Amino acid sequence: MAIRRGDTVLFPRAPVIVSWAAVGGKKEGEGPLASGFDEIIEDAGFTAEGAESWEQGESMLQQHCIRRCLRKAETDKKQVELAFAGDLQAQCTASNYTMRELGIPFAGLYGACSTMAESLCLGALCAAAGYADRVLAFSSSHFCAAERQFRTPLNYGGKRTPTAQWTATASGACLLRKPGRPGIPILSATIGRVCDAGVRDINNMGAAMAPAAASTLLAFFEGTGARPEQFDAVVTGDLGRVGSELLHEMMQQAGFPLTNQQDCGCLLYRSDARDVQAGGSGAGCSASVLAAHLLPRLQSGELHRILFLSTGALMSQTTFLQGESIPGIAHCVELGSPQGGQPR
Amino acid sequence: MAIRRGDTVLFPRAPVIVSWAAVGGKKEGEGPLASGFDEIIEDAGFTAEGAESWEQGESMLQQHCIRRCLRKAETDKKQVELAFAGDLQAQCTASNYTMRELGIPFAGLYGACSTMAESLCLGALCAAAGYADRVLAFSSSHFCAAERQFRTPLNYGGKRTPTAQWTATASGACLLRKPGRPGIPILSATIGRVCDAGVRDINNMGAAMAPAAASTLLAFFEGTGARPEQFDAVVTGDLGRVGSELLHEMMQQAGFPLTNQQDCGCLLYRSDARDVQAGGSGAGCSASVLAAHLLPRLQSGELHRILFLSTGALMSQTTFLQGESIPGIAHCVELGSPQGGQPR
Repeated sequence: MAIRRGDTVLFPRAPVIVSWAAVGGKKEGEGPLASGFDEIIEDAGFTAEGAESWEQGESMLQQHCIRRCLRKAETDKKQVELAFAGDLQAQCTASNYTMRELGIPFAGLYGACSTMAESLCLGALCAAAGYADRVLAFSSSHFCAAERQFRTPLNYGGKRTPTAQWTATASGACLLRKPGRPGIPILSATIGRVCDAGVRDINNMGAAMAPAAASTLLAFFEGTGARPEQFDAVVTGDLGRVGSELLHEMMQQAGFPLTNQQDCGCLLYRSDARDVQAGGSGAGCSASVLAAHLLPRLQSGELHRILFLSTGALMSQTTFLQGESIPGIAHCVELGSPQGGQPR
Repeated sequence: MAIRRGDTVLFPRAPVIVSWAAVGGKKEGEGPLASGFDEIIEDAGFTAEGAESWEQGESMLQQHCIRRCLRKAETDKKQVELAFAGDLQAQCTASNYTMRELGIPFAGLYGACSTMAESLCLGALCAAAGYADRVLAFSSSHFCAAERQFRTPLNYGGKRTPTAQWTATASGACLLRKPGRPGIPILSATIGRVCDAGVRDINNMGAAMAPAAASTLLAFFEGTGARPEQFDAVVTGDLGRVGSELLHEMMQQAGFPLTNQQDCGCLLYRSDARDVQAGGSGAGCSASVLAAHLLPRLQSGELHRILFLSTGALMSQTTFLQGESIPGIAHCVELGSPQGGQPR
């Protein structure tokens, strides 16, 4: 049965990630994780496949990613019993149109860039309880679709600030199954709380999300009695360099200094990549870094146990223009290796 | 343990809805369900409470509703272990800003007008598995916030078509607890699949959503072996008069004629109410009708067993302008009475 420690649900019998895939765009294919991607799309507009908009392109990106994920597990979409997903588009249309093609029972999520961890949390809860076997969890973002929606017009030529992050054109997908099969075990799930430190700068998402990351990490450590140093890595979603620095300060002050934090927004692009500034972001950032980089290392035994924490900034273009501050949220899953994690 | 029948999860030990509340606007207060609402807000802009926009007003509407729901269960927000919610605003900002005030672990949903049933499904799954006790499920919509986002400018004076539905200014909230307590039992949960019949008319949401409602009802009836006539009512979310008629045709053809269907969009307003045309809609429509009308009747024993099915149209203003068709989705919970449902 479920064991709850604070906000964290522990799984004594862990549901498992049995397959995964990552698909990225051209810029992601020029980054340090390029070789981990299952597919790099040169034309993120997917015009050759008939897409007529960036929004449709993002849905295609998801569909490519899911196809590869399911193929690796030799699973037909008809066998998938449940899907959790979301994206950054208003009304999550990329995911909705993808699910129209897939026809799988679908619970739509909105967690902004925290969506990948949110979908893994809910997927793990459902797989562990035996509600569904074969649960699909995925997310994506698309630079052009996101920028058109949230920031300056793409051709406006506005100068990017040093704290700005680059929205990844990428998707990541995982197939989860009930406990007892080979795969990457999901050892616990922590659903986060909304935090708002009053940041109003839409070009400094890292600062807006860092308090939520700290809140969820502290809930996990205080609830479970674990310590950061018991993990090979504490991987945050897309705080970027600015947000990561703030997170370190907050965790230090709280008595849980992070010695082994990595950030998906810093891992995805080369540090000198053009226009990336403080790092990558977008719901596809942590999703693709998980599938292209982290899960393979857990599979090989190079990593034994990590915390994977996607962070989301929960504003809209409307609330931004209305002068609202930007609330953040972070969800967390604890991942082991198939060989069994180190006891902590 | 969980019993799965097709897409439906049955709960042999049912989680329960222990308290609920509905808050509506002026127009909802003029409808036939007015006396069932816990609060009618004359000024849906909430200017007296400091709201500066309709978007903030919608968040206030939610907060009023949640406060009343929790007060009835003599529960402090600090005792609530998990919340599922969403709304129609881009990036679900009404719910995000509400959760900033509440500070409860929060899994954000996007299911358009299907959100209330989606939140009840996921809440019931988590409460039944013992992952969380005291789970909050809520949703809302706000006429002005939604119209500004989806349709003509509010002052434009465009003529409403006969198939148009009126977006409710309303919120509904439920507090769920683990099995074994007094309350309205949630007997099963069915997560729906996205359906798209090719409807492109944003003023005919009923037609866009009816196929999804039929799909989920058929999944339920075929999966569980139940028949529509075994329920006191099959209550759909907000198909309105046009969508309800289509649903009847589809269910008749499939061999499951509905004799006892009611629609929240038809229940909420008087049939001669100005500008309501085909009925009410919005994520707050089914949420508030559930809390103002259906749950009290299950509580009193006037109803013994119902299906509650919220339906959502999954487009955005962007995909609408791009000429995309409108996909629909419907999620379903089976609700009993505290006195025990009739055996079916």
